[in-house]
Amino acid sequence: LDPKEWATPPFKPTMKPDGPITAESRLYARSSSDDKAAIVAMLTGLDAIKAAGIRMKSKIRFVFEGEEEAGSRNLEKTMASRRDLFAADLWLMCDAPLYQTRQQSVIFGARGVTQVNITVYGPRTELHSGHYGNWAPNPAMSLARLLASMKDDTGRVLIKGFYEGIQPLTVDERALLRAVPDDPDGLLRLFGLAAPEPFAESLQEAYQRPSLNIRGISAGHVGAAATNVIPSVAVASLDMRLVTETRGDAMLEKVKAHIRSQGFYLVDSDPDDATRARYRDIVKLTTTSPTEAYRVSVTTAQSKSMIDGLSRALGTPPVVLRTSGATGPMAELAAAASAPAISVQTVNFDDNQHTDNENLRLGHLFGAVRTLAAVLTLP
Amino acid sequence: LDPKEWATPPFKPTMKPDGPITAESRLYARSSSDDKAAIVAMLTGLDAIKAAGIRMKSKIRFVFEGEEEAGSRNLEKTMASRRDLFAADLWLMCDAPLYQTRQQSVIFGARGVTQVNITVYGPRTELHSGHYGNWAPNPAMSLARLLASMKDDTGRVLIKGFYEGIQPLTVDERALLRAVPDDPDGLLRLFGLAAPEPFAESLQEAYQRPSLNIRGISAGHVGAAATNVIPSVAVASLDMRLVTETRGDAMLEKVKAHIRSQGFYLVDSDPDDATRARYRDIVKLTTTSPTEAYRVSVTTAQSKSMIDGLSRALGTPPVVLRTSGATGPMAELAAAASAPAISVQTVNFDDNQHTDNENLRLGHLFGAVRTLAAVLTLP
Repeated sequence: LDPKEWATPPFKPTMKPDGPITAESRLYARSSSDDKAAIVAMLTGLDAIKAAGIRMKSKIRFVFEGEEEAGSRNLEKTMASRRDLFAADLWLMCDAPLYQTRQQSVIFGARGVTQVNITVYGPRTELHSGHYGNWAPNPAMSLARLLASMKDDTGRVLIKGFYEGIQPLTVDERALLRAVPDDPDGLLRLFGLAAPEPFAESLQEAYQRPSLNIRGISAGHVGAAATNVIPSVAVASLDMRLVTETRGDAMLEKVKAHIRSQGFYLVDSDPDDATRARYRDIVKLTTTSPTEAYRVSVTTAQSKSMIDGLSRALGTPPVVLRTSGATGPMAELAAAASAPAISVQTVNFDDNQHTDNENLRLGHLFGAVRTLAAVLTLP
Repeated sequence: LDPKEWATPPFKPTMKPDGPITAESRLYARSSSDDKAAIVAMLTGLDAIKAAGIRMKSKIRFVFEGEEEAGSRNLEKTMASRRDLFAADLWLMCDAPLYQTRQQSVIFGARGVTQVNITVYGPRTELHSGHYGNWAPNPAMSLARLLASMKDDTGRVLIKGFYEGIQPLTVDERALLRAVPDDPDGLLRLFGLAAPEPFAESLQEAYQRPSLNIRGISAGHVGAAATNVIPSVAVASLDMRLVTETRGDAMLEKVKAHIRSQGFYLVDSDPDDATRARYRDIVKLTTTSPTEAYRVSVTTAQSKSMIDGLSRALGTPPVVLRTSGATGPMAELAAAASAPAISVQTVNFDDNQHTDNENLRLGHLFGAVRTLAAVLTLP
């Protein structure tokens, strides 16, 4: 392609739409929403500010990072090597979808995350379930018992100290959470669920606590592929979402202590013959390096300025979220530049990011231009 | 191949052995052990009886069934349609490996088996574990809790009535089990296990009870393939080994009652929207048609005659097993011909049947000829 054809606006689509282009039209393309939409909206917003002759009240620096989906392995090093370039009073992150109701949202924190892989060891090889079925211990049963010991049937995590350090919410904080226009009944219908976990109270309240989630479990085979065996190993992958009061390493130690308290001997690689001969219940635990949680108060001058600015620009208050339930690099960025981070969303929540048919609703793109232009001109 | 080359004895192997052929030599071929060995040994035993001019004291009928590995779907029908052909005073089954010590064994029963597939339903599709991780219930955790409720940590099954009907063993029965030269320490070393399930007492005692075994579990993905989701379904395949006191259908009802007692709503196909909206914990249960257990007393005249005959022929008493831990069609055959069934083993236990490198130890083949010739000439 001749760069002139695609690099010069106006961009000419090679596929014609079925009908007239409206706010409801969607642009289907890899990265259309995550993360090209925000970049285009920022730059277009900047053009609009210039065209309107508006004088900006702050010095704006743009940071585009191309490795976010690959673990951002060079970000910290790069920022450390050029602190002058990254010095700031506030980080503004624009990489996320708007609230489900399509209201503009602004988020003041993100949960952290760490993955925990658990392998329970049974016989060295699969054994015939008739010959050894109620004699040789079954690692899938041991794993089930271990997992079941971690949560009660209301969803409360039973690992000792799991919620330690989390203060009861203040009246204002509770009011903030309750102002979020969540639609739990709509979500339950959408997901085909009868009820959320009782311990959760509400979605927003759930985000204020760390979570323990089973990503997957595996042992032997199931259904038509099942064979008459005692499996040799049983594996579970869990994730813990972290909040600022619960740091990753401390939480991992609590998980380890819990596993030991259930009678398991912990190893960090496959057990050798001597270990197998000595311990009846052996668990290998491996983890990923945690991403820590982040939260900045909604009551700082900057936070208030952001909420007020968005309210003025949009003519209606934004949805204010104390924290996202999901994880982002807010903590790393804030630490590297010694400045708070606030996240302003741009795209449609049903954008299928990271999967097939990624799409960007044009109404959201146009809205993002307006929102970001407003934010860029704040004092 | 010209049929003359392979169908006419002596069979000429196309691959030369590395050294001289001895009792320790092994013949590696598909079906070499399971089930050609027993057939060849029977027919060779018969030739030997004829060649020695020994007059047989019983009328012998041979039944070779070619669909055993495919579920024996036509066996019952065939036997029912020609009862005259299958009329007998005793069934002798020769389809199994000898005891591990290479001692001749004779078995007077087999456990039955039935498979139980359990599917626990979570959200209709996988959900992001950050956004919904401690709000939407996780089906893998529900499955873990359900499985853990089925057995205590000694291995005792907690399903109500699971062991109902099983009488305490008599002094003679206990003596019979204790006479079996099991080597639990050797097995534990071989399998890389520190200890058997405490409830098992011994391998032979475990066989006298029904078992509940997890064949496999699956939900989401694990390890490097794990993604940050709440899985949509969690699946377990279990098997129950049955004894004569615990019939398959009754045991399945007990499993269902247990699942209900744990708060789950049972379905037999994927739940529709209304069912999903109404019940928080939904389990689909499917099963295979059970194979029932079988046992004939070791003290009947026929049983005693078999044990005595083998003792005389071998010069040493055989290992007498009250029941196999595994499953075979003894119950069906015995019922179809209204005659007891006894199993006399022939091949090496390390024959890799049903897997790679199936093999037949020639010493076992030669021993099987002698054993079966002796058995065929019993009164």
